[in-house]
Amino acid sequence: MKNQVKIFDTTLRDGEQVPGCKLDTKSKLILAEKIDVLGVDIIEAGFPISSPGDFKSVVEISKIIKSASVCALSRANEKDIDVAAESLKHAKKPRIHTGIGTSEIHIKHKFNSNKDSIIDLAKRAVTHAKKYVEDVEFYAEDAGRTENDFLAKVCEEVIKSGATVLNIPDTTGYCLPIEYGEKIKYLVDNVSGIENVTISCHCHNDLGLATANSIYGVLNGARQVECTVNGIGERAGNTSLEEVVMILRQHSDLNLDTNINSKLLNETSQKVSELMGMPVQPNKAIVGSNAFAHSSGIHQDGVIKKRETYEIIDPIDVGVNKSSIVLTARSGRAALAYRMKEFGVNLTKKELDDVYGEFLVIADQKKEVTDTDFPSILQKKNISYG
Amino acid sequence: MKNQVKIFDTTLRDGEQVPGCKLDTKSKLILAEKIDVLGVDIIEAGFPISSPGDFKSVVEISKIIKSASVCALSRANEKDIDVAAESLKHAKKPRIHTGIGTSEIHIKHKFNSNKDSIIDLAKRAVTHAKKYVEDVEFYAEDAGRTENDFLAKVCEEVIKSGATVLNIPDTTGYCLPIEYGEKIKYLVDNVSGIENVTISCHCHNDLGLATANSIYGVLNGARQVECTVNGIGERAGNTSLEEVVMILRQHSDLNLDTNINSKLLNETSQKVSELMGMPVQPNKAIVGSNAFAHSSGIHQDGVIKKRETYEIIDPIDVGVNKSSIVLTARSGRAALAYRMKEFGVNLTKKELDDVYGEFLVIADQKKEVTDTDFPSILQKKNISYG
Repeated sequence: MKNQVKIFDTTLRDGEQVPGCKLDTKSKLILAEKIDVLGVDIIEAGFPISSPGDFKSVVEISKIIKSASVCALSRANEKDIDVAAESLKHAKKPRIHTGIGTSEIHIKHKFNSNKDSIIDLAKRAVTHAKKYVEDVEFYAEDAGRTENDFLAKVCEEVIKSGATVLNIPDTTGYCLPIEYGEKIKYLVDNVSGIENVTISCHCHNDLGLATANSIYGVLNGARQVECTVNGIGERAGNTSLEEVVMILRQHSDLNLDTNINSKLLNETSQKVSELMGMPVQPNKAIVGSNAFAHSSGIHQDGVIKKRETYEIIDPIDVGVNKSSIVLTARSGRAALAYRMKEFGVNLTKKELDDVYGEFLVIADQKKEVTDTDFPSILQKKNISYG
Repeated sequence: MKNQVKIFDTTLRDGEQVPGCKLDTKSKLILAEKIDVLGVDIIEAGFPISSPGDFKSVVEISKIIKSASVCALSRANEKDIDVAAESLKHAKKPRIHTGIGTSEIHIKHKFNSNKDSIIDLAKRAVTHAKKYVEDVEFYAEDAGRTENDFLAKVCEEVIKSGATVLNIPDTTGYCLPIEYGEKIKYLVDNVSGIENVTISCHCHNDLGLATANSIYGVLNGARQVECTVNGIGERAGNTSLEEVVMILRQHSDLNLDTNINSKLLNETSQKVSELMGMPVQPNKAIVGSNAFAHSSGIHQDGVIKKRETYEIIDPIDVGVNKSSIVLTARSGRAALAYRMKEFGVNLTKKELDDVYGEFLVIADQKKEVTDTDFPSILQKKNISYG
């Protein structure tokens, strides 16, 4: 049996707190249902204290979600936690997420505080949240830049107070994969009671390493990954849900898997992009419009002979109909013959040579050659069609 | 002194062979100059045999590039190499890039060949290229899925034939960072003569790991990274130049660095996006429009107190003027006070409380609150301004 990695989706919280991404309650409900159906284990629905609209969204999401736990964010103070608990009262499986910064720079410059006071606030927050719900996740903000020994101490204390999940965020996206993995391993080896809780990775993509860091966290003992669809999120965004899911699925030798129905990844991605008004770049891994498009001759030739020469993922597994062979000036004869055949014209070798020269003339002038260019190419070479 | 990692930019070759990205010669020249000024060590200018237009582009780029080596791609056959050599004849520092697939799936399904023949073709290609230029880079296509012992054998043979650079591509973007790093280490440990050549990482982003894989290659002995601006490229794209450069710069303890002038990263990114018609998603690391934008209250409060609480890179270092504090429903009082001050209004604590409630009402209705909303908010609360 595979080791289960839980997916904690924060598209509606960390993803939504992005310039331009804010959603009204109706849109949040549409996405929450889609994300639930996708198979995530926990939906972070919002940060209820932040605004009346966000509070309302968490209340309404709590009412409709059938499978996933619903989670609300709070800072480490009673009022935040009270409001979070209130917003979750209709949830079947409620989780309160509370926490505080633990790095020296956060303790000193954000809180003007000291380590002992931070631990005290952390414990009190978890204890307060436990009055409302059984499932309490604690985040040690900026854990990525927190010394491991102090981080371990904080973790040990909040476990004693009842935390069920420990979130270890690389808030600024600074860590290298090996560092982040070692941090998780340090906690596994040094925090008493850690075997009874779930360690969670929460990584940011400021250096393009969020996905790799999350995977290294999991390889070192974490069993929850916090992520967003399309990797949206503040600044350079969060870990991409679709990347983590497909890495674990492609590397089955790791013996780790999630509950995600990968065939819904593509349509979920498109819905998030549409409702949040946040475009997905064409070369985005897994869900970009070009993720399964081939345009260079060498690649096309290979893919036509055998898809696996240039594709590791079968597009169908992520909800894309098939790989596309796009014709450009970098395409070769194999691709042109393939597309002409789809168009209904079987070219002889001699005809293909003829037509290929004409094709390149046109291809050098425009970005992409499409079926609508075929008739004039064929006519010029006196080849009948249709 | 830091260990020098060479940047091999393939924006104009692997990046350009993307549906919709094809450039005419004029645009290629504009980008080639920008990329040269950025400080890359090698510019892969094109694949000359692929089309007359691409041949011409390599010729013209060779004429104008002042600092970088100019490289042309070829397959492992004499005609490709002859044309590549011809296209480079004006280059100050020409490099021919030639190679062949080495994985079982490529040998069997793409070439219908066997290992001995592949080694023979590889050696002959390098020997032929050496007749034209001193600097010959060999690529072992699909090295990511090639058994290490056969890959080592191929590398050893092409070094004997005169290859100066060994490119180890993870063509399908399949490897995990640790695997890719171990592959490089295996070559360092097992290929005789490898100390006299440069090992190059060429990674694809199908699983979102291209950047991490390249970094792990470098940590294990590679000293060249092949990448593209904005990570553009076929399917999910190539390693992002800007991410590799900034990871090495932020992690100065690694004692590795590139020649890149990072202050030009942002404008180079924008020019590539504009000329290739390929949008950069707002949350793209380093160069996305949101990469240094803060909208949640917790983060804004931290950044206003001290930038480093939530930012590891100073935006000025990558050519962005400053971090932006964007006002949304997730923003707190600190951000509103900060932006009001920039707008020319210093609010008292009492006024701020008053104005904040009104701000949230508006913020819950729209994605972003801007300076144009301030007058009506202030008027409602009878606060004079301007």
